[in-house]
Amino acid sequence: MDLQHLALHRTDGAPIYLQLYRRYREAISEGKLRPGDRVPSVRSLASELNVARGTVEAAYQMLVSEGYFVARGAAGTVVSPRLEHLAGPGQTPPARAASAPSNARMASSAALPFQLGLPALDAFPRKAWARLAGRSLRTLETVAMAYPDPAGYEPLRRAIATYLGISRGITCTHDQVFVTSGYRGALDLICQTLLKPADTGWFEDPGYVHARQFLERIGVRLTPVPVDAEGLNVTAGLQRASHASFAVVTPTHQSPLGMALSLPRRLELLDWAAQRRAWIIEDDYDSEFRYQGRPLPALKSLDGHGRVLYTGTFSKVLFPGLRLAYLVVPQAQVGRFKDAVTIFPGPGSISPQATVASFMEEGHFARHLRKMRTLYAERRGYLVDALERYGADWLRVQPQAGGIHVSAGLASRQDDIALTTAANAKGLAVEALGRWRIRKASQGGLLMGYANFASEDDAVKAVKRLLRVIKDSPA
Amino acid sequence: MDLQHLALHRTDGAPIYLQLYRRYREAISEGKLRPGDRVPSVRSLASELNVARGTVEAAYQMLVSEGYFVARGAAGTVVSPRLEHLAGPGQTPPARAASAPSNARMASSAALPFQLGLPALDAFPRKAWARLAGRSLRTLETVAMAYPDPAGYEPLRRAIATYLGISRGITCTHDQVFVTSGYRGALDLICQTLLKPADTGWFEDPGYVHARQFLERIGVRLTPVPVDAEGLNVTAGLQRASHASFAVVTPTHQSPLGMALSLPRRLELLDWAAQRRAWIIEDDYDSEFRYQGRPLPALKSLDGHGRVLYTGTFSKVLFPGLRLAYLVVPQAQVGRFKDAVTIFPGPGSISPQATVASFMEEGHFARHLRKMRTLYAERRGYLVDALERYGADWLRVQPQAGGIHVSAGLASRQDDIALTTAANAKGLAVEALGRWRIRKASQGGLLMGYANFASEDDAVKAVKRLLRVIKDSPA
Repeated sequence: MDLQHLALHRTDGAPIYLQLYRRYREAISEGKLRPGDRVPSVRSLASELNVARGTVEAAYQMLVSEGYFVARGAAGTVVSPRLEHLAGPGQTPPARAASAPSNARMASSAALPFQLGLPALDAFPRKAWARLAGRSLRTLETVAMAYPDPAGYEPLRRAIATYLGISRGITCTHDQVFVTSGYRGALDLICQTLLKPADTGWFEDPGYVHARQFLERIGVRLTPVPVDAEGLNVTAGLQRASHASFAVVTPTHQSPLGMALSLPRRLELLDWAAQRRAWIIEDDYDSEFRYQGRPLPALKSLDGHGRVLYTGTFSKVLFPGLRLAYLVVPQAQVGRFKDAVTIFPGPGSISPQATVASFMEEGHFARHLRKMRTLYAERRGYLVDALERYGADWLRVQPQAGGIHVSAGLASRQDDIALTTAANAKGLAVEALGRWRIRKASQGGLLMGYANFASEDDAVKAVKRLLRVIKDSPA
Repeated sequence: MDLQHLALHRTDGAPIYLQLYRRYREAISEGKLRPGDRVPSVRSLASELNVARGTVEAAYQMLVSEGYFVARGAAGTVVSPRLEHLAGPGQTPPARAASAPSNARMASSAALPFQLGLPALDAFPRKAWARLAGRSLRTLETVAMAYPDPAGYEPLRRAIATYLGISRGITCTHDQVFVTSGYRGALDLICQTLLKPADTGWFEDPGYVHARQFLERIGVRLTPVPVDAEGLNVTAGLQRASHASFAVVTPTHQSPLGMALSLPRRLELLDWAAQRRAWIIEDDYDSEFRYQGRPLPALKSLDGHGRVLYTGTFSKVLFPGLRLAYLVVPQAQVGRFKDAVTIFPGPGSISPQATVASFMEEGHFARHLRKMRTLYAERRGYLVDALERYGADWLRVQPQAGGIHVSAGLASRQDDIALTTAANAKGLAVEALGRWRIRKASQGGLLMGYANFASEDDAVKAVKRLLRVIKDSPA
């Protein structure tokens, strides 16, 4: 390829690496670069263009990570041969096809098929968001730029309190709301404020693997408590560790199995916490997505004794790169938490918080959620239908109350961890249920995200590729 | 005041509370509301305007915190009588006077006279910033929205590595750079990765009070090490705790006294760390501001044995509400830190990181620093001149290598903590050196920020007010 296609504008405003990245995408989609074509080495391109090597490297890495380029070690870097279905020179293929990183076309070029915990980024209202962000930066009070409230930007905390009141049945004031840097930020704040290093807590088995890693690293002890069709088995928890000082639960959609914690279990759990003066950490990570009926109100809404620490996140309803979550603490604990946030690292920059506040206050948030509920119900249908049509002999889809992923049991005795390692190598981002378990189980399972399947066809193709891996794996 | 001045536009884009806040500011600066005038109660205004009470409350709180309103309990809320110097009806006073919260006019309405650690917010290029932020949100790669690098946004880490190479003599790759949520985020990451709870560390006495509070709360033990004209007294450290496993130092401008750590001391300190395999945490919080000569390169630039953890922050050079700092770790520790950042809460949202990256890549950062250096040298002059002209009998300005505050010893034996309590009550934000000390000292001192003194006159007025407090306090 002729380097003139890469002509860069040092004054055009966009950073050089971004210009380079875009020029390559254009050159590929216009057919000026063909699948299999070799691109210049980082060193030689940097010297040709007279830019830093790191600049070229950054552009190349983005192109590799999005599936445009393939690095072939000593043989250099080439345009991905997988892009062969693209149009020939002169024709501009549809943007979505141009960004396909694999055979299964995904709605977002950043998503791999079955990717877990990732919302439909193609449906995110970027323009409205960018407009609100620009405006909030121009109008942000100087006082917020100077002394950000360590508990989080107050208008955002008010918006969250209002939202939780309406949609989750939680009565709280903004004083009880603490904005945190993701769910782990909320866990960290809870650990620092209420727990001691050697404390023991109940942890759902299977349960959210990243929370487990965090808590183990912090030094608390976790007692695995099994999960059944009604969610966390409270009786088993009482038998195994009635003396525990906290419990981590996902009552709305058990993470990762998806069932709801039944009302009798909720009451048992609250009873235990009130008697033992234990803390319940309620992780309400994706309650917004429910496809039949209305979700049960949050466990927090039944918290008569002030034992529940409620956490929610914007990672699923907005986007994970936002890294914003929130914690609602019992009124009696507000003082201790206010003290803690002045000492520990807080929720990060003021500007994304201000943007989310405007997004909520001005109705974009409610609109976006409504749109996403419809979209995810549709995309969930694509995956479940494909699994039932083609994979019924191999995978059994589990009933689920909602969420943005499907959990399916393996019909065979195959090892789910080995199987997902093989699938991941083929670019399929399924996860093994086994990795989310503390105690080994005899039967394996797979966790599959569907938020980025843009069509039935996408889902069918991805499911067929997955089934090939399953059939090829040792029984 | 006639409520028609408050006419709100539900479609105008800005949140209602912000509109209310602005309407009141306008009404005051246009003389429609006069100092001492009573404003409606929150309840009655909310019902008049048919908006939530919280909305009115938020607007009122901002107006109170910025000095426009004064809450008088049962007597209601009034327009601050301190605004009496404002122009009469019909005349629009200059914007700066309109936002004066006190007799000493400050460049930023968010700053109190002598406020520490706050950059000149009036000089921050908000428009350019908002433009870059909007653009970076529109062009941000989907992959960064989906899977933010827990070590920080890569283009920002590259920009930081380049900047540190040029301006601080630090040779590092972006791999060694970790973006953190403020300086405390960097300390937290270091503690979680390299330290054990019962570890002992050297801490400068006096030293940065917020770091001390954080470290004490985390559970490490601190040995106070005195500071003299050459900075941290390494010999004293060796005598008191040669077995320590870490030391926290501010080599460029000792925090808060402002002297530089001498070269012989730097070499002694590095020697000790290499021999004891101890960690040196270098807090280079405001090295950008130096008014005579060039600052010494960072201690990190001499780190032949990989013992120095270097931290810098954007709080002073951009604005504190950004909550972004960074940590440079020795090459041999990169793996451990990469592992830790996948587990602990990270640097927060991707978008402010992308904005800072563009700001640096496109030259705004270097330009802003140059501008600020000139501005701060000027504003420092205002304060030092005023202190020498009017306060020489009471306060002795200490020689300092740079920074954005002045430290002055009390000539009398007055208790600096009692004195600053009295000054704070008068709206003067001086801090007591005593609060930054671990061991009591016989002589007190005051710490005074000057970044927001917009003129000589501002500084003179503030200094005279401060002197009145000193003269009225018991000796």
